[in-house]
Amino acid sequence: MMSLKYAKRMDNIKASEIRELLKLTQQPHIISFAGGMPAPESFPIEEFKKVNQEVLENNGALAMQYGPTEGYLPLREVIAKRMKKLQVDATAENVLVTSGSQQGLDFAAKIFINPGDIIVCESPTYLGAINAFKAYEPKFIEVSTDDHGMDMEELEEVLKSNDNVKFIYVIPDFQNPSGKTWSVERRKKLVELANKYNVAIIEDNPYGELRFEGEILPAIKHFDTEGRVAFLGTFSKILSPGLRLGWVVADKEFLSKFILVKQGADLQSSTISQVEVAKFLEIYDLDEHIQKIIELYRHRRNVMMEAIEKEFPKEVKYTYPEGGLFTWIVLPEYMNARELAARALEYNVAYVPGGSFFPNGGNENTARLNYSNMNDEKIREGIKALGKVIKEALRTN
Amino acid sequence: MMSLKYAKRMDNIKASEIRELLKLTQQPHIISFAGGMPAPESFPIEEFKKVNQEVLENNGALAMQYGPTEGYLPLREVIAKRMKKLQVDATAENVLVTSGSQQGLDFAAKIFINPGDIIVCESPTYLGAINAFKAYEPKFIEVSTDDHGMDMEELEEVLKSNDNVKFIYVIPDFQNPSGKTWSVERRKKLVELANKYNVAIIEDNPYGELRFEGEILPAIKHFDTEGRVAFLGTFSKILSPGLRLGWVVADKEFLSKFILVKQGADLQSSTISQVEVAKFLEIYDLDEHIQKIIELYRHRRNVMMEAIEKEFPKEVKYTYPEGGLFTWIVLPEYMNARELAARALEYNVAYVPGGSFFPNGGNENTARLNYSNMNDEKIREGIKALGKVIKEALRTN
Repeated sequence: MMSLKYAKRMDNIKASEIRELLKLTQQPHIISFAGGMPAPESFPIEEFKKVNQEVLENNGALAMQYGPTEGYLPLREVIAKRMKKLQVDATAENVLVTSGSQQGLDFAAKIFINPGDIIVCESPTYLGAINAFKAYEPKFIEVSTDDHGMDMEELEEVLKSNDNVKFIYVIPDFQNPSGKTWSVERRKKLVELANKYNVAIIEDNPYGELRFEGEILPAIKHFDTEGRVAFLGTFSKILSPGLRLGWVVADKEFLSKFILVKQGADLQSSTISQVEVAKFLEIYDLDEHIQKIIELYRHRRNVMMEAIEKEFPKEVKYTYPEGGLFTWIVLPEYMNARELAARALEYNVAYVPGGSFFPNGGNENTARLNYSNMNDEKIREGIKALGKVIKEALRTN
Repeated sequence: MMSLKYAKRMDNIKASEIRELLKLTQQPHIISFAGGMPAPESFPIEEFKKVNQEVLENNGALAMQYGPTEGYLPLREVIAKRMKKLQVDATAENVLVTSGSQQGLDFAAKIFINPGDIIVCESPTYLGAINAFKAYEPKFIEVSTDDHGMDMEELEEVLKSNDNVKFIYVIPDFQNPSGKTWSVERRKKLVELANKYNVAIIEDNPYGELRFEGEILPAIKHFDTEGRVAFLGTFSKILSPGLRLGWVVADKEFLSKFILVKQGADLQSSTISQVEVAKFLEIYDLDEHIQKIIELYRHRRNVMMEAIEKEFPKEVKYTYPEGGLFTWIVLPEYMNARELAARALEYNVAYVPGGSFFPNGGNENTARLNYSNMNDEKIREGIKALGKVIKEALRTN
């Protein structure tokens, strides 16, 4: 047969390196620092058994039926209330329930991007966002980041000299992949610049509540005075990713665009998952549950960082993350983390080469390491093997 | 503030009339023929209580974790097997699990449509598909249908004279909205024409198994010799729409495009829903369950059709559906079903005006009536009221 004639956008989309890697790393002998998977021992399985029985017993017909596109109202209400933790004022009317925050990323690009329009992002930025956005044929402009967030002078230069920037995409807390967190000053300044140059901000915040030390910072959305920030949240990292429930918080008019797009995309997110999560939030204390996750991940962060300090040569730089799931490794420039990944796999250790997190390429001397999904022993063993692989690659000139 | 600069496609998208109506019709005093909602008394609530406990007891960590984009393998396997009912040969490799078949519609357009490309569809066609497709800025060419499917001569004329047709979208069984079913000959002929003119076919089949009389017909996919048919199925009408689980069946290469797009759109569908449905299919007999739904809907179809025959004036034409959820009303040309809908609401009766099902407009003298979601008494009362509204609108010249 003649081959089917696909849309131009399909030339732009390739399989996610992470999701392909995940298939490989599901083999039990692999020590995987590759995914962003929560620790399964943190899942509230017993609680969900109880929640499910209550929901089906008392509310089964509603839970198994179609529901509104915006989401299940009691869940939207409690999501709105929980936003106070990040100092965001919201009501149910500001909340759309999505199928994971990934869907919010897809919708953001769908709402804003004509082919050739510009998305400004951190350098590096989340691979899953790059893949979602690429389907809408944007150009990416990466802005340098340091330990406090984006470089604001560089950002203003970009906004000043490009009039088709549609939005700035940022992950301000324990960024995926870099593990870094924006300062309060940069958050404020970002909103000022977005106001000045009339662009939107997509704030992706899957890890903000998973802070190991210090105070939770106000979300960028907290500083939004003109309704141009859309905040994306998710239950994936604080409850269960298998539920596929996330949310968008935005001002009503802005949110209405997300709702319109949601109707066409999949009508609504799972009613039964929504009713169950609402019931969970009613009868259990999610913050108490999150505290347990924090303790587990803080411990694993400690184990990984101690092992890195011990096993990696001094030529390697890395982030000491104050929360979230990842640390970020910068190798000497002459090293290629993709080549080393193949070597590491011979030791049954997997990670994601960092180059994938730069939409415009380069930076092949970087790597993302996840610590949430492996036990202490595997973390130590895996980092030791990685240290060996890196040391072998050192130029000893 | 200056207003945000949305993408051009957003001018194309408007709220689904059905989903907006649904909000209204959730009030208990409304007799709603408007939605396409399954009868809640058909939901296997007790069975799902058992299924959920088994899944969380024995497989909880897997069910609450991320899973592969393609879907949960045991579920894909059983979906592939069940396709035999429609005479489609498939293995798990041909199956992608989606978030309802609505997501398959969105993906079809995302895969194929550059702005201005043509989608050929039945006239009328499914409103939810029109809305999903419109986000990708296609042109629609509607092809006339009779009681046996699309007019094949008219279709060939369209394909011959337009070289940017990307796919033909059809709902061959108990079509939404018309309630009509394609003959076997037309199904064969459709594939022949798609082969000849090198276009894809998107076969949307949410109701095929809900046949009240006669034999289930082979799917259009059954006649696919060149891998150009993508079949969309769903558990919404045979199990529960609240689960949001559907599927795409296609040849491997074609399916790989859907999988790529799924990664960006929402990573994967709910793991827990997938594991639960797979368990349901393992310990219960879905075909037995479907038989109960068929008996319920056949009865309601009978009640509605008898009431229509009794209450509607002879000037009204309608489909006698052999399955599915809908009948279709053609009023005298001078009537406007949108205006009558407002009148009907005064009697607390709702339906969807048919004009919404024609992507290029017109045909305002038509209406879709759903019979799956109301009991006998309400169906009789609602049709009686509608009959009254229509009779009042008759010109008695």
